[in-house]
Amino acid sequence: MPADKIDTIVRLAKARGIVFPSSEIYGGSRAAYDYGPLGVELKENVKRQWWQALVRGRDDVVGLDSSVILAREVWEASGHVKEFADPLTECLSCHKRFRADHLEEAYEAKHKHAPEHGLADVNCPNCGNKGQFTEPKMFNGMLTTHLGPVQDGSGLHYLRPETAQGIFVSYKNVFETARKKIPFGIGQMGKSFRNEITPGNFIFRTREFEQMEMEFFVRPGEDEKWHEYWIEERYAWYTGLGIDPANLRIFEHPKEKLSHYSKRTVDIEYRFNFGGSEFSELEGIANRTDFDLNTHSKHSGQDLSYFDQANNERFTPYVIEPAAGVNRCMLAFLMDAYSADEAPNAKGVMEPRTVLKLDRRLAPVKVAVLPLSRNADLSPKARQLADSLRAHWNVDFDDAQAIGRRYRRQDEVGTPFCVTVDFETLEDNAVTVRERDTMAQERVSLDQVESYLAARLVGC
Amino acid sequence: MPADKIDTIVRLAKARGIVFPSSEIYGGSRAAYDYGPLGVELKENVKRQWWQALVRGRDDVVGLDSSVILAREVWEASGHVKEFADPLTECLSCHKRFRADHLEEAYEAKHKHAPEHGLADVNCPNCGNKGQFTEPKMFNGMLTTHLGPVQDGSGLHYLRPETAQGIFVSYKNVFETARKKIPFGIGQMGKSFRNEITPGNFIFRTREFEQMEMEFFVRPGEDEKWHEYWIEERYAWYTGLGIDPANLRIFEHPKEKLSHYSKRTVDIEYRFNFGGSEFSELEGIANRTDFDLNTHSKHSGQDLSYFDQANNERFTPYVIEPAAGVNRCMLAFLMDAYSADEAPNAKGVMEPRTVLKLDRRLAPVKVAVLPLSRNADLSPKARQLADSLRAHWNVDFDDAQAIGRRYRRQDEVGTPFCVTVDFETLEDNAVTVRERDTMAQERVSLDQVESYLAARLVGC
Repeated sequence: MPADKIDTIVRLAKARGIVFPSSEIYGGSRAAYDYGPLGVELKENVKRQWWQALVRGRDDVVGLDSSVILAREVWEASGHVKEFADPLTECLSCHKRFRADHLEEAYEAKHKHAPEHGLADVNCPNCGNKGQFTEPKMFNGMLTTHLGPVQDGSGLHYLRPETAQGIFVSYKNVFETARKKIPFGIGQMGKSFRNEITPGNFIFRTREFEQMEMEFFVRPGEDEKWHEYWIEERYAWYTGLGIDPANLRIFEHPKEKLSHYSKRTVDIEYRFNFGGSEFSELEGIANRTDFDLNTHSKHSGQDLSYFDQANNERFTPYVIEPAAGVNRCMLAFLMDAYSADEAPNAKGVMEPRTVLKLDRRLAPVKVAVLPLSRNADLSPKARQLADSLRAHWNVDFDDAQAIGRRYRRQDEVGTPFCVTVDFETLEDNAVTVRERDTMAQERVSLDQVESYLAARLVGC
Repeated sequence: MPADKIDTIVRLAKARGIVFPSSEIYGGSRAAYDYGPLGVELKENVKRQWWQALVRGRDDVVGLDSSVILAREVWEASGHVKEFADPLTECLSCHKRFRADHLEEAYEAKHKHAPEHGLADVNCPNCGNKGQFTEPKMFNGMLTTHLGPVQDGSGLHYLRPETAQGIFVSYKNVFETARKKIPFGIGQMGKSFRNEITPGNFIFRTREFEQMEMEFFVRPGEDEKWHEYWIEERYAWYTGLGIDPANLRIFEHPKEKLSHYSKRTVDIEYRFNFGGSEFSELEGIANRTDFDLNTHSKHSGQDLSYFDQANNERFTPYVIEPAAGVNRCMLAFLMDAYSADEAPNAKGVMEPRTVLKLDRRLAPVKVAVLPLSRNADLSPKARQLADSLRAHWNVDFDDAQAIGRRYRRQDEVGTPFCVTVDFETLEDNAVTVRERDTMAQERVSLDQVESYLAARLVGC
């Protein structure tokens, strides 16, 4: 994949209302992005597929939606107040601030070896001065806010930097009401916030983002087996939704770099080709052991152990956590689906075309209805068809410009089917259905269109 | 509806994993609630129905997902930094803080007339002392946070108190990419945050909550007509999803109490019967005029006017905004669906039962599969059926306790269909399907179950 593909995707996303900078009329922001009419559908489809695969489609996982603002004690117990910090350094010359570890990693990616004297070897990415950095200080990545009408410290709260802790804190309530036995999981999707020192790479790293996380509670001793199971399941989810395995990599975290709660962590990475690094994390799959339940049990004074009736045994479950980023998943799906081939123009001459070969389940628009021309007979018939299909799918209606241009427009955003209402329709009550990838066209009678599409849009 | 119905709903919600207090193991919080396995599905179903009715199902509305943290200038331009404030007062005796207007409203609800001398007539709800309040001060309801690694005021940002402003700020980007003409709307759902002085009434008023808002852009002069249209549409949405019209009320905001941006605002209210007030707001439908586009145009220096090609005319659109609260909608659907009737027990004697008569589209579980007993033949057959139905719907599998108890359990959470696999199934390859409201049972052959249910779960 060429290194400039990300720029192509950013331009396409902006031009077609998929993703654009937040608050752009006020100069924009790297903290977050807005998802336009097509982006909100694509993102929602990614989330629906995750929820179906990990929660709704399984008997051994249930869902949860806990809040962004939890009790302050949660983050003290989890270790986030102490441990969730990055090394921050400032250039003495231009006073820009950076993550010290990112500066050293960028050096290593460029020179193929680590900087021998640490930051002293590194040039400032902003002003270019070499080795002029303050001693790195640890900087906590949680955003804070104050709740309540009293302006002292008692109202201090954190915006969650991960959804996972909400699951551990509600584990007891869920467990007591869900009538499940271990092994058993709790999944949730939602916004998280991190005060990233250097947000960047489009929607890959932002201060506001969405996560899809599942905590799977297992008997200690069975944790390693379940860890393997979830690594395989999650890998298969990406390839099953069309990601080319050649662009995926499994990355094993070195033992000495594991988070404080982890026994083993494996990342699924995608070949984003961001400047300097070929692969970047899509999802981490961690064996969190019994760390979280133990620490919350200790801090809250609540018993969070599990009684296994069959074996007459009490234990604190181990936890396997597949944790994916919604926005970076969406970016990977976009990049992997992007392709260029050729299609005939109105004169039959082959011309380049851009196609998003998104899995049909992910495509933001499932069907485009196109009257061949703006006409008092064709337009109402096409509108009527579009309205009836809208009961089932997200449908676009487009009657502007030549039909070839309109096909190109739908190809570019990955619409699997275009339905053209033409003059013949008025006589034979049939329409032409065109498939995106093959560009094959089929004549389908109007009263069969819905079932024709339903058979080809299973699971959408 | 009896005044204690809300307590019944709170108990049911806690007991059945629909809603429980956030961070309860740390003492809970009134700021937010967690939505358990059934609650997350119910809430999602409410949102899906809104999205289908207001966005995906219409040709004249598109979707958006803008961020919680927008540029600070957005809230200065919108008037929120100055105007989004409530009068805060403190009891001089116990030092508890209250909203002054709420204290006076509660007095009026109790005494059937306004307090003659304002707060001087009011007793403190906490300590009971009369008339001992500080002069009310205006208190801004926006939560703040700081972005970036610099600890001075430059990082100050607000958590959005409404999703609407994200729509106005992205209006130009959406408009340029969506190829729509006025009248035309942009809808979005998402979290908002308000530093409520007195959160309360369960999930009705929390500091973290979800909204479903749509801004419908129209030609000035046509705004009043479209306002009426959307009041009717929104009212019909609630009744169409099963809310009893006797529990709904249209409330016209008095002219002198309108928000700074509003020409006219109408609320759809539900008979929640919270202590003191019979009806409370579900949704506000406001004619925001051209206030927002004008103010953002002025502050950003961007042209946000619309050029109407057909009439060769340029104008700033007026905006009609139906803005609903997800959580309070969900509460209203729960309360309205709650009912008690009778059902025969195992001996045929009628006993009281609790039923959530939720519209099937809203029900968190669509189908429960129940093997008559735990048995080496029945259980695998039932599990196999449950697994195949999970491809389409949220399905529960329950094999614990007597079948009557299991029916009651499903009735209590509003599951429309129970499918029982019994010993006859092993011979006739058929199952018993029981409908929730009528309790009617029908024998359906196994290979017909899916289509039988699909015909009865249209739009789910």
